[in-house]
Amino acid sequence: MERVDSIITAGMVLPSPLTAPIHDGAVAIQNGLIVDVGPKEAVLSRYDAARLLNRPSSLLMPGLINCHTHAAMTIFRGMADDLPLKIWLEEHIFPAEAALTPELVELGTELACAEMIRSGTTSFVDMYLFEDVVASVVDRVGMRAWLGEGVFDFSTPAFKDGANALQETERLLNKWQGHERITITIDPHTPYTCREELWLKAMKLADRTGALLVTHLSETEWEVQEMKARVGRSPVAYLDSLSLLNERMLAAHCVALSHNDMELLTRRGVAVAHCPESNLKLASGVAPVPALLRMNGRVCLGTDGAASNNDLNMFGEMRTAALLHKGVGRDPVVMSAPDVFAMATLWAADALHRPDIGRCERDCRADLVILNMDMPHMTPCYNPLSQIVYAANGAEVSDVLVNGASLMENGRLLTIDEARLLSRVKQLCLN
Amino acid sequence: MERVDSIITAGMVLPSPLTAPIHDGAVAIQNGLIVDVGPKEAVLSRYDAARLLNRPSSLLMPGLINCHTHAAMTIFRGMADDLPLKIWLEEHIFPAEAALTPELVELGTELACAEMIRSGTTSFVDMYLFEDVVASVVDRVGMRAWLGEGVFDFSTPAFKDGANALQETERLLNKWQGHERITITIDPHTPYTCREELWLKAMKLADRTGALLVTHLSETEWEVQEMKARVGRSPVAYLDSLSLLNERMLAAHCVALSHNDMELLTRRGVAVAHCPESNLKLASGVAPVPALLRMNGRVCLGTDGAASNNDLNMFGEMRTAALLHKGVGRDPVVMSAPDVFAMATLWAADALHRPDIGRCERDCRADLVILNMDMPHMTPCYNPLSQIVYAANGAEVSDVLVNGASLMENGRLLTIDEARLLSRVKQLCLN
Repeated sequence: MERVDSIITAGMVLPSPLTAPIHDGAVAIQNGLIVDVGPKEAVLSRYDAARLLNRPSSLLMPGLINCHTHAAMTIFRGMADDLPLKIWLEEHIFPAEAALTPELVELGTELACAEMIRSGTTSFVDMYLFEDVVASVVDRVGMRAWLGEGVFDFSTPAFKDGANALQETERLLNKWQGHERITITIDPHTPYTCREELWLKAMKLADRTGALLVTHLSETEWEVQEMKARVGRSPVAYLDSLSLLNERMLAAHCVALSHNDMELLTRRGVAVAHCPESNLKLASGVAPVPALLRMNGRVCLGTDGAASNNDLNMFGEMRTAALLHKGVGRDPVVMSAPDVFAMATLWAADALHRPDIGRCERDCRADLVILNMDMPHMTPCYNPLSQIVYAANGAEVSDVLVNGASLMENGRLLTIDEARLLSRVKQLCLN
Repeated sequence: MERVDSIITAGMVLPSPLTAPIHDGAVAIQNGLIVDVGPKEAVLSRYDAARLLNRPSSLLMPGLINCHTHAAMTIFRGMADDLPLKIWLEEHIFPAEAALTPELVELGTELACAEMIRSGTTSFVDMYLFEDVVASVVDRVGMRAWLGEGVFDFSTPAFKDGANALQETERLLNKWQGHERITITIDPHTPYTCREELWLKAMKLADRTGALLVTHLSETEWEVQEMKARVGRSPVAYLDSLSLLNERMLAAHCVALSHNDMELLTRRGVAVAHCPESNLKLASGVAPVPALLRMNGRVCLGTDGAASNNDLNMFGEMRTAALLHKGVGRDPVVMSAPDVFAMATLWAADALHRPDIGRCERDCRADLVILNMDMPHMTPCYNPLSQIVYAANGAEVSDVLVNGASLMENGRLLTIDEARLLSRVKQLCLN
């Protein structure tokens, strides 16, 4: 009998969107790694576990990966809705962000982590301000994250200009280097808020450090027109003309794309973080994701920030992605449950160049989620993947592990004092 | 002190989408009716209650009204997804329905009720087969419902033809007459599955009894082309040519509408049950609801059956309705949170000619729902309506009352043996 840290048994184990579910399965975990997955009897006969978690009525699956968010914006959730973009941004979000402090970012990030863990997200990609504070929260809370300080040509409450923000990025790259769960990214905000010089500096830093470049790209038709007026090219074509597009870029939104833009993105291997709910709510439109997939484009999924969603729930985001494109494209076959689940797991791991996450398989990191299937809306279960994408809402999540450590057990958060957190948020935000 | 059956106090009471929320509010209930709503101190000083329910961290609101579903189809949830409509219907749904029995309908309806109660729905409008069985379940479970036997030109597992189904409808109208919570409707299935003669018979019965006429209308572009080929008119224009359109008709879907169709529907006062998620999943398209609202059309909201959704969650449906039209119509102001909440409450009550439901106000039926607001994704709460429509997912529901009686208390169903129900569904469906 080999000794392992823990074994989880579950009524069903879903290793990945590509693999058949294992009925009465189990997973053995050692040092944060999955060392075995298989039928319960086989796993239990092979290993002796310090800790045994039995969930006979549940489904065990890989944790979800939110590939685009601004976690701390939870503090602005529902502050302003149903407004034209310009009024929303200029009269509500910008003034609120102008008053941003490290303390508010810390609070909003912890709130976001609580919400994400509760709804089955184990990893997230974040771009915001005071990102060092975000990293400290992630370190303490135990999630996995890709974090980048927002780089702009203008000043933010955190930094006076883009050069300063890039210096901070370099400091963060050094500070958090080697952290098991935290990876620093380089985040020029958009093609229209960063000048050519800043983009090239960012790229140089990315080339030198191997870090991912995370940005917003072609979110709106306005952005396309603006860039055409400024530089005579679409945002995608503009970044390509600077040789910035490659497989280490993660670009959020990509709603307003020409056929040429799509060809560039797929040819260069740029990963697109599709954010359907935010794009709908802000009236930006519907990203041509089925077309990108037909061209073998790399696509993952994100919620965007809570000010434009208004939640960070990846189950809802998967559902919206699966439903939306069928109806808008009049094709009931596109964005199938396996594809959409892959966008939130396997394909997200690919976008992050981390083949060891996003699946519940041997030698992968134990980033795992357990869903209680004994609920009316999850019954009957003919097909677990279909249930996850079309019926689940995230409230089924009972247990969450990241790197083998439990962040939630039986519906209780273990690394966050939830009552204290919620009362602090109310105190600071609602006065 | 006036004696009442019960008083509920809540951190916030939201009487309707038109009314400001009452902080630290309370509701007094007597004989299934709301007799008072106001600040907690005022209500508590006026009444002496046999039962007091305190929910200081919660929001009390009117129960949601699902204006179009086929409840029993929960037993087909996730049985077949991501398929072309024809294959889905002909190779999966029709064969499954051919084997339908009263026992399966009873089971599926009880499962639907469990799911609907858990997600805050207190009333629903159902069209299916063996509807007498559905009524028995609703009677026992305690929900409020509008129920109609599906009327077709062809035979169903329940009846050999439309005339028989109409006879059954008449029997049900007599049998359930005067029931406080159950109303029988007359349900010709669609313009293309019922001949003119059957429609006219249905209308005659509706005129004689005052019952509502519930149907599916203009769900797809195919239906429009089919009716144009058969009778030279769109489905809406066809029903109007038979003088069938009036304010006692509740028509589901209405996706494929010409401008003339929209004018007819609004001029005749037909209520439209918008089912955005089902229309997306089956690739039917997006109903022109913002245009109908601009024309002062009557619109409410429904989930459709669980085979094409795949849940019966009205919170999700509200969210999809609010997001979808903004993105598709490129207008962030349409389908505001108050409008969408009205579609699920006030405007639904109007569609059902029942001004005494859909709001939490004096002299209305006590059909009420309590949401736990002390959850990360519901915090902070700048605006409760925005939170309900854009952030809630239904899992916040802790308590549900219909006609003053508790159907769920503190997360536990009181009128359904949930464990037994789920095990029976698994037994009957998954073998």
